Amino acid sequence: MTDPDVVELAKRRGFFFQANDAYGSVAGFHAFGPRGAALKRNVEDAWRDRFVVREGNHEIESPTVVPEDVFAASGHLDTFDDMLVECPDCGESHRADHLVEDESDVEDAESLAADAVEELLADHDADCPTCDAALAGEAVDEFNLMFETSIGPGSSQTGYLRPETAQGILVEFPRLKEYARNQLPFGVAQVGRSYRNEISPRNSLLRVRELTLAELQQFAAPDGDGPDLAPVADVPLRLYPAAAQEREGEGDLELTVREAVDEGVVANPWLAYYLGRARQWYERVGVDPARLRFRQHLPGELAHYASACWDAEARLHGDWVEVGGFAFRADHDLTKHDAHSDERFTLFREYDEPRTVERPTVDPDMSYLGPEFGEAAADVVDALETLAERDPDAFSGDRVTVEADDETCSLPVEKTGFAVREETVHGEHVTPHVVEPSIGIDRVVYAVTAHALRHDEVDGEERTRLALPPTVAPTVAGVFPLTDAQADRARDLADRLTRRGMPATYDDAGSIGRRYRRQDEIGTPFCVTLDERTPADDCATIRDRDTTDQVRVPLAEVPDTIAALRAGETTFDAVSREYDDG
Amino acid sequence: MTDPDVVELAKRRGFFFQANDAYGSVAGFHAFGPRGAALKRNVEDAWRDRFVVREGNHEIESPTVVPEDVFAASGHLDTFDDMLVECPDCGESHRADHLVEDESDVEDAESLAADAVEELLADHDADCPTCDAALAGEAVDEFNLMFETSIGPGSSQTGYLRPETAQGILVEFPRLKEYARNQLPFGVAQVGRSYRNEISPRNSLLRVRELTLAELQQFAAPDGDGPDLAPVADVPLRLYPAAAQEREGEGDLELTVREAVDEGVVANPWLAYYLGRARQWYERVGVDPARLRFRQHLPGELAHYASACWDAEARLHGDWVEVGGFAFRADHDLTKHDAHSDERFTLFREYDEPRTVERPTVDPDMSYLGPEFGEAAADVVDALETLAERDPDAFSGDRVTVEADDETCSLPVEKTGFAVREETVHGEHVTPHVVEPSIGIDRVVYAVTAHALRHDEVDGEERTRLALPPTVAPTVAGVFPLTDAQADRARDLADRLTRRGMPATYDDAGSIGRRYRRQDEIGTPFCVTLDERTPADDCATIRDRDTTDQVRVPLAEVPDTIAALRAGETTFDAVSREYDDG
Repeated sequence: MTDPDVVELAKRRGFFFQANDAYGSVAGFHAFGPRGAALKRNVEDAWRDRFVVREGNHEIESPTVVPEDVFAASGHLDTFDDMLVECPDCGESHRADHLVEDESDVEDAESLAADAVEELLADHDADCPTCDAALAGEAVDEFNLMFETSIGPGSSQTGYLRPETAQGILVEFPRLKEYARNQLPFGVAQVGRSYRNEISPRNSLLRVRELTLAELQQFAAPDGDGPDLAPVADVPLRLYPAAAQEREGEGDLELTVREAVDEGVVANPWLAYYLGRARQWYERVGVDPARLRFRQHLPGELAHYASACWDAEARLHGDWVEVGGFAFRADHDLTKHDAHSDERFTLFREYDEPRTVERPTVDPDMSYLGPEFGEAAADVVDALETLAERDPDAFSGDRVTVEADDETCSLPVEKTGFAVREETVHGEHVTPHVVEPSIGIDRVVYAVTAHALRHDEVDGEERTRLALPPTVAPTVAGVFPLTDAQADRARDLADRLTRRGMPATYDDAGSIGRRYRRQDEIGTPFCVTLDERTPADDCATIRDRDTTDQVRVPLAEVPDTIAALRAGETTFDAVSREYDDG
Repeated sequence: MTDPDVVELAKRRGFFFQANDAYGSVAGFHAFGPRGAALKRNVEDAWRDRFVVREGNHEIESPTVVPEDVFAASGHLDTFDDMLVECPDCGESHRADHLVEDESDVEDAESLAADAVEELLADHDADCPTCDAALAGEAVDEFNLMFETSIGPGSSQTGYLRPETAQGILVEFPRLKEYARNQLPFGVAQVGRSYRNEISPRNSLLRVRELTLAELQQFAAPDGDGPDLAPVADVPLRLYPAAAQEREGEGDLELTVREAVDEGVVANPWLAYYLGRARQWYERVGVDPARLRFRQHLPGELAHYASACWDAEARLHGDWVEVGGFAFRADHDLTKHDAHSDERFTLFREYDEPRTVERPTVDPDMSYLGPEFGEAAADVVDALETLAERDPDAFSGDRVTVEADDETCSLPVEKTGFAVREETVHGEHVTPHVVEPSIGIDRVVYAVTAHALRHDEVDGEERTRLALPPTVAPTVAGVFPLTDAQADRARDLADRLTRRGMPATYDDAGSIGRRYRRQDEIGTPFCVTLDERTPADDCATIRDRDTTDQVRVPLAEVPDTIAALRAGETTFDAVSREYDDG
């Protein structure tokens, strides 16, 4: 799953590494060094550009510490669990479902009940991976993955570190719909830290306890048209549908977005749209398209809030690893928050013209209900109102019966004031559906680094190279003076590049070959060398990281040239032709 | 302190508001709506540009959940407290020091001991601000402000949400110095969430439990030269030194950075340098320089890690409010981590030429020490080594005495093998000093919004205007078609501006006057109107938010013109002269 080469390079060159190393290991927490933080920020900015700016969506920031009520409503308090088994000998905790998958043919143990997993552990004589003690007979518990804390002193409130950024958007829906002027569809995004108290964090950035998620909640009318698919219609998707996973031996499909929708493979057009956008984005930030697929969740695998879900998976060191999830959450969350809170999580949709509707209503005779039902009378009124709305036929006989205050109350229909009235209605309350593209930024950073790592040979010497796309590389250019005489000009060029948003590193230490190697290893796409000819011809040499091709360019034009190369507006070949001919 | 006008506008127009409102109030947690998130990001980016990119510093990202060991070492576990008093009647918790300041002449109750504050509460008959019950005689407790949580299942570890981003940098110093190639000075920055479990959060963004800090740790040699002050030498600082605060009636000083250093008002040149940079930055993001000062901490007010500190304070609704801190942390943190962890938090500084030094050493005769001291022999050796290093004169007599294993051990000097040897030393371990500029981003966002808010009149109508600097405004341009016929061109222009990194809003709803008001209120500096003349003359009208001046500019040149205006490369007057003459 993880490649030791990637992990070593990441640590040595300041990409990412286990945090707080000086105090021994607390698994699951990573720090991003100067290179990794820049790479991560570039990946996030590319996400923002693709999923927020170009889509005309909104972006917000909400707190990471969230009061208990929110997760009681969303269902995370009850169901955001993993299965835990503790070794009776060494006390180490393990994911029980993962042990079952390792020991048996079961592929999807997460979807089983805890007692079934407990039985499977016993049936397969599972041992503790740490100390080899037998785990048969040990209890499998549901362990909630949210970090808990107390808010405030004294009579404090329970809070949780958010396991996803999504709830911070969903819980603010009553306000966000106002900012969107009450018009569907609209999308609200958030990029930020999220937390999962994993039982067994491992594999570098792939299973961590603190992570960055980039999530978009696309709100749309349940009966709406869906997005215009034209801009992504021809984007090719490698799809692995649930049906194919269930049939032995069937593999991926290659379909365009349009085909996937037309053939019903991806049923929800918003999902299909964002799979297409995601496919473009993953490639742009450096995930190898040949090692990327979209796998549909099996029914037992779906999160509690999802009606349908596709995972983006990247091939990493022989395994398929989730690097994003695309869930159709329907109206699950908004309906829950509407029921649990004091606000309405709906949107009022005005009709083009007012409509006349027949509305069954009651107008109970309180002089009868009061004496008859005493303190329960008010509850009887509520029950009658609800019944009239849901089942007006119940009022067609002489008497009607409702449950109120835990009693069965029967009364004559004539005392209920039941009537069907005509009403003019100007619109209706709609609970939007939600489609959620959710990207695990840390895993993408790992995948991008892993897919970029190359070992090749230059002039008979081995070199390590990170073939990062220029848009996400932490440093855009290395700038080298060949001798001290060019130092000032080189520093000035590095400054100019950096101030134009193209971070450049000045380096005058060691041979040119060693300086190239240092930049190759951190993925710097271009190096610029100033040499003894520079004072005379006012030119510098730009070298391409991947081909090691070189071209001599007027110093004044270096920034524009590198900007154009980075933006993909030209190619190194084209630049070479332009200047070598000139 | 907070202005109801600012709070109302911020909520209504999607800048910031209390989070999780649907579930009642959990004080101290705010969300940033679409406008506020954009404004906040722009403020952070301006900070990054000023304190990281242009200074050639590094930026990292570290976890927000941190194991206990780190804060035990840094001192936060023991001393990051506020004084708490709980009302015996209503149970509400209050900051005891704040109550004392409200009730008495004491200005700096935070620096007093808890029992002194308890006495003052009694002496001044302080009442509960919530229910008016008497607080005299109630205990004042130290309440640690860090949020606590448990990491992992089973035998879990205690973790804390970081109260500052700084420790995430300091604890990684052994690795960060490698990335900086072991050369001082270097700076490492971090922008991210931090947490303070405030006793009484209040005042919108001014006292919150979850906040964003932008912090820089500037590492420098204790005996180093300090930075080149030239680029900031003439920056004017409004300074309020500790001495002036202690003398009744003395006010601020107006000094340039150079004068402040030369006159010894700001003793540390790194501190002075960053005060100057900060002064420039605050103004650039929209803090009114006339309402900004730097106040030196009084000795009793200093945080446990600080040897000296200046706060940046902004005048808000009649109060001076801290919006940044500039602390000289000396070697406090690195020394603590060096002592508490297994790693060295020093930097090896090679001498220009190797030096020969006389080194007192011991080489104890174990055949004597073993029988003589038994199990304590090893401790005796350690004690002798330490003594030789610290006090070689102790070996000048016949016998020498050390404490080992709680016993006083005396032995003949000849058995210690004491000698002074010449050694060639190539360098020395240095513990760098740290100067830390630390900015509270949320408070700056509040201050920028408050300082920008204006009520004026346009054409006899009142308008609300946010005079935000164009570099931080959430939206750079509003683009309006006067009639439907210009809608497509206007949409296209808004798209082009947005893709060039200048977020633009298309708006075709309501009168032009109302559209202007909407943009004025969210601080959009420029509006572009396309009208019935546009198809013929290919021009549009740009309007300046603050003056409401207008100029007609060729459509094709609108993006470049707005880019230049936003970057401050031209002025609206200059643009007007150019095109009105043309």
